[in-house]
Amino acid sequence: MAPQYAPSLRSCLAPLLLFLQTGFVVIFAFYVEIGGDIEADGTTFSSFYPEFQDVNVMVILGFGFMCTFLVRYSYSATGFNLLVAIMASQWAIILRGMESWYYTGKIRADLRSLVVAEMCAASALISIGAVLGKTNPVHLVLIGLLEVSGFILNEWLLQVLLKAPADNSIMLLHVFGAFFGLTLTWILFRKGSLQPFEKEKFDRQTGLFSMLGSLFLWMFWPSFNSVLVDNHSQRRLWAVCSTYLALAVSAVTAAAMSVLCSPKGKLNLICMQSCILAGGVAVGVSMSAVRQPWEAMTIGFAAAIVSTAGWRHLKTHMLLAFECHDTCAVLSTHGLPGLLGWLAHLLLQIKACDDHATAITFAVFHICTLFITITVSLSMGVLTGFLLKWNFWRPPQDKKCFDDQAFWEFPHLAVRK
Amino acid sequence: MAPQYAPSLRSCLAPLLLFLQTGFVVIFAFYVEIGGDIEADGTTFSSFYPEFQDVNVMVILGFGFMCTFLVRYSYSATGFNLLVAIMASQWAIILRGMESWYYTGKIRADLRSLVVAEMCAASALISIGAVLGKTNPVHLVLIGLLEVSGFILNEWLLQVLLKAPADNSIMLLHVFGAFFGLTLTWILFRKGSLQPFEKEKFDRQTGLFSMLGSLFLWMFWPSFNSVLVDNHSQRRLWAVCSTYLALAVSAVTAAAMSVLCSPKGKLNLICMQSCILAGGVAVGVSMSAVRQPWEAMTIGFAAAIVSTAGWRHLKTHMLLAFECHDTCAVLSTHGLPGLLGWLAHLLLQIKACDDHATAITFAVFHICTLFITITVSLSMGVLTGFLLKWNFWRPPQDKKCFDDQAFWEFPHLAVRK
Amino acid sequence: MAPQYAPSLRSCLAPLLLFLQTGFVVIFAFYVEIGGDIEADGTTFSSFYPEFQDVNVMVILGFGFMCTFLVRYSYSATGFNLLVAIMASQWAIILRGMESWYYTGKIRADLRSLVVAEMCAASALISIGAVLGKTNPVHLVLIGLLEVSGFILNEWLLQVLLKAPADNSIMLLHVFGAFFGLTLTWILFRKGSLQPFEKEKFDRQTGLFSMLGSLFLWMFWPSFNSVLVDNHSQRRLWAVCSTYLALAVSAVTAAAMSVLCSPKGKLNLICMQSCILAGGVAVGVSMSAVRQPWEAMTIGFAAAIVSTAGWRHLKTHMLLAFECHDTCAVLSTHGLPGLLGWLAHLLLQIKACDDHATAITFAVFHICTLFITITVSLSMGVLTGFLLKWNFWRPPQDKKCFDDQAFWEFPHLAVRK
Repeated sequence: MAPQYAPSLRSCLAPLLLFLQTGFVVIFAFYVEIGGDIEADGTTFSSFYPEFQDVNVMVILGFGFMCTFLVRYSYSATGFNLLVAIMASQWAIILRGMESWYYTGKIRADLRSLVVAEMCAASALISIGAVLGKTNPVHLVLIGLLEVSGFILNEWLLQVLLKAPADNSIMLLHVFGAFFGLTLTWILFRKGSLQPFEKEKFDRQTGLFSMLGSLFLWMFWPSFNSVLVDNHSQRRLWAVCSTYLALAVSAVTAAAMSVLCSPKGKLNLICMQSCILAGGVAVGVSMSAVRQPWEAMTIGFAAAIVSTAGWRHLKTHMLLAFECHDTCAVLSTHGLPGLLGWLAHLLLQIKACDDHATAITFAVFHICTLFITITVSLSMGVLTGFLLKWNFWRPPQDKKCFDDQAFWEFPHLAVRK
Repeated sequence: MAPQYAPSLRSCLAPLLLFLQTGFVVIFAFYVEIGGDIEADGTTFSSFYPEFQDVNVMVILGFGFMCTFLVRYSYSATGFNLLVAIMASQWAIILRGMESWYYTGKIRADLRSLVVAEMCAASALISIGAVLGKTNPVHLVLIGLLEVSGFILNEWLLQVLLKAPADNSIMLLHVFGAFFGLTLTWILFRKGSLQPFEKEKFDRQTGLFSMLGSLFLWMFWPSFNSVLVDNHSQRRLWAVCSTYLALAVSAVTAAAMSVLCSPKGKLNLICMQSCILAGGVAVGVSMSAVRQPWEAMTIGFAAAIVSTAGWRHLKTHMLLAFECHDTCAVLSTHGLPGLLGWLAHLLLQIKACDDHATAITFAVFHICTLFITITVSLSMGVLTGFLLKWNFWRPPQDKKCFDDQAFWEFPHLAVRK
Repeated sequence: MAPQYAPSLRSCLAPLLLFLQTGFVVIFAFYVEIGGDIEADGTTFSSFYPEFQDVNVMVILGFGFMCTFLVRYSYSATGFNLLVAIMASQWAIILRGMESWYYTGKIRADLRSLVVAEMCAASALISIGAVLGKTNPVHLVLIGLLEVSGFILNEWLLQVLLKAPADNSIMLLHVFGAFFGLTLTWILFRKGSLQPFEKEKFDRQTGLFSMLGSLFLWMFWPSFNSVLVDNHSQRRLWAVCSTYLALAVSAVTAAAMSVLCSPKGKLNLICMQSCILAGGVAVGVSMSAVRQPWEAMTIGFAAAIVSTAGWRHLKTHMLLAFECHDTCAVLSTHGLPGLLGWLAHLLLQIKACDDHATAITFAVFHICTLFITITVSLSMGVLTGFLLKWNFWRPPQDKKCFDDQAFWEFPHLAVRK
């Protein structure tokens, strides 16, 4: 009954991976050197490394286990997440080093560039959350590479056109990733893949694995938001504390809202998992404008309400109205809180402005930032979507969607567990 | 068959959470500011942040997953743990800042106050381990807030009456939490809830999740005991190494004792999990008097023996003799090792005294400390217990005890796993 | 049906553990003191502690959960791993302090000696991966102690005979552990234990737990390779970045090779888990000679190919040809990548030599290092194997191999999950 052979993997995935990886090794061999902006006295390495590891845990373990709830797709969720994260990180190191390569002939790799590369990869991981289960790993790797290219293009555009600082534009990764993923899943929609949506459900064990991943994201989110803040302890302390408070508020609010929006008046573990993170997303986007703890907490409060309401209602509506099927609800987990964070940034910055003219300048600048980001995100999404519609990549058959059996060997267990 | 509606959640939990959370945001808005005692050069932030994260992982993940072993209650164990931890931490930040607010009008929040707040929350999490499964989340949140209030009251009393240093009184959190929880579960005891105790058992998967939580507690316990030791590397190294050695000894001893106390001569995973932590608890309480590695190791050895014997025998006896049902065996995991640590502290300190008079002064002081702690703990426990007996909070029906179905949505799986 | 009594545990394991642990406490009481080479200004403690915790997580959680995939043996895999890790670490602290004890009468314990002790324990944990499921915990504890003794003897021989620096000889732990384990499992082979090899399979849940352990190993491997590099930030940065890149390449390559070597053209989760680590092993062994990122990446590439091919083909051949049954495939996970790393070290060092004479001297020295290591490893393996063949230790019956029921209490679940 189980498919005996997975043609897309042997003829497509393995050669693609080997080809790309060999290419990366060659590029690294010629152009990349390690080291650079870390001082020789050891202070900076030690102060940076723990947060680097926190982000690493979030990207590899957090995102990887967050989507394991799909009852027959948990191997793919965590295994393909690892593959995409690695490929996208290497590609991001290369692309982001292009400018330095243009001027000096070399790309520098250090802890900071690894962290930024993992954040770009996180943006790709958000996108694949929207199409998970309906694609094969070849699709996912291509999505990862193209999404990262688009994201770095967007960062470059923002820098060239608007002189936007890198830290701010990187934090738009949630918005970029969510809209890219939504466009993709809208273009790749197939009626037939609706049939196995039964397999989108979760059971007790997969729900707990997923909770584990979400908790790692929740616990280490302060590191995610503070790692790129320059090495001045007061500002990093600020970023850590406000993210912590926003996450706390959004977890409580998400639990309350999850009950209020439920037809049965009960909690939903998957809903709670997604929405406890909303505060971290929103505060990350608005970080540079937050001045008071209550501002961070209010942003977390609003983000959790928007996110929970979106999770409960938008997902179904998007499917029925726009034929846009969002597996892991990235719109409500990353898209809406990201937009809310953007809005909060705008309002807080305007409030802080002394005169009218500065406020208007900032508002125009800030609206342009979002406009460019969404435009690039949607265009790259459309482009990637049409590339992946090509049958050459052998999309999984409709009835094999959301099923590990199509890609992974399972033993026939004769033994009673 | 499954309950279709959970009235206690929609009419009680959601409004309570939103009300409390809004209150906390308002208090934070008026009185809390971030920053303060971290030096501007960045050293302290970097040296403190990794241990802060370790404690965070212990409180959110370690305690959360440690109780997942209950075969039908794992969602509640981890989800409600998160809720209580967050509410209790925010409340602890506010309460512990009252003194500074009285003098300066402001409460300072920094990494140190977040860590202390999480430790107060840990004390509440120990208490809810005793009543887990027989309460609803409204109960748990109230227990969390009242327990933290009592704990901070106790710390304040110890400081005012006995001039006890804050670090020592915080480490009594294990004793305080355990006795508070025991009093509660004694008062809340209902005969009918004995019926589903069948659901207190564990299966292979839930046992492994629980092991995961315990291992995180075990691995990061050195951070828990050393994080509040002032920033002098020798003393922190001391705290880390002695906790590490005590944990090692108590893990080995717990395994041996688990076999010796078992009627079948086999190991018990849940017993081992609880009792490997005994050394960390006991050494934490006696930390400031431990001078030699072998002292820490001996304390770990004794703590594991007491803890395993308690786990195997006391739990049943407490239920039969006192109608006191202790779900997660907090008496043997935290209570007894905590008392042992207190005793070790007394003996070591007396041994170190030069003359008789100092020794007696210290002994009186030390006995008073314990006496006040237990008095406050029992009184607050009685108070909280009678408050929660009130039917207004809609306790779960007897047959719905230890069952996630009462609080969480589960999908009806038509798909074969 | 289930065995009602486990004689080996009560009459053998418990007394052994208590005896050894008491012995360790006595030795620590007389000879060990904490502290020493950490500077008083606090810098070193803070810069070392996070990496110490990473290694701790790898040894306790990573190795512990990596072998949980065995469908009926997951409790034993993680529980016995903890026991062996702790006993071996304490023993390693004592043995490695013998030299300092000889000269000063005292053994110093600090973070560095704890990390080195955990690495020696990791070497023992690799060995027990080869015999897992066919032994009882008494065997495992004895293997742990003897393996660590052999490993430290080897380190001492290398230092005395060849003046090899300690950091290099410690990194041979993978080679030493793998060959020790293989010799053991070859000597302990029993035809009858082939029958329950059906229980060597994995299911969905145990596969995910195992993935969790592997991911922790994968994520924290940069800390494992860099923690003993002296505290000069450039060299530690180097070690971290090259390990990170090698791991990335080996993860991608392992996925591709896992597909290409599979008869069904599918991925295999257990294969992928083992082989994504190959790059970290190989780069760790050759660390001191790697100068360019592409060298690390190429080593990772080759290691993953060797490791995956070994996993797919060698394991069965070893069993059929040599009656050597390697439960967790330590030969392909640690042995072959370790040898490859040794070879890469040789080639890179020769390439870097200016003249012919130095190159030959180094080659002779390097070949002797490997020769001594393998000799000591095989001899200690043979010795340990014959000691353990003694029926006094009550090996598990053939049909109880790979089965938790022989050692752990399980509740009879009347409740529907």
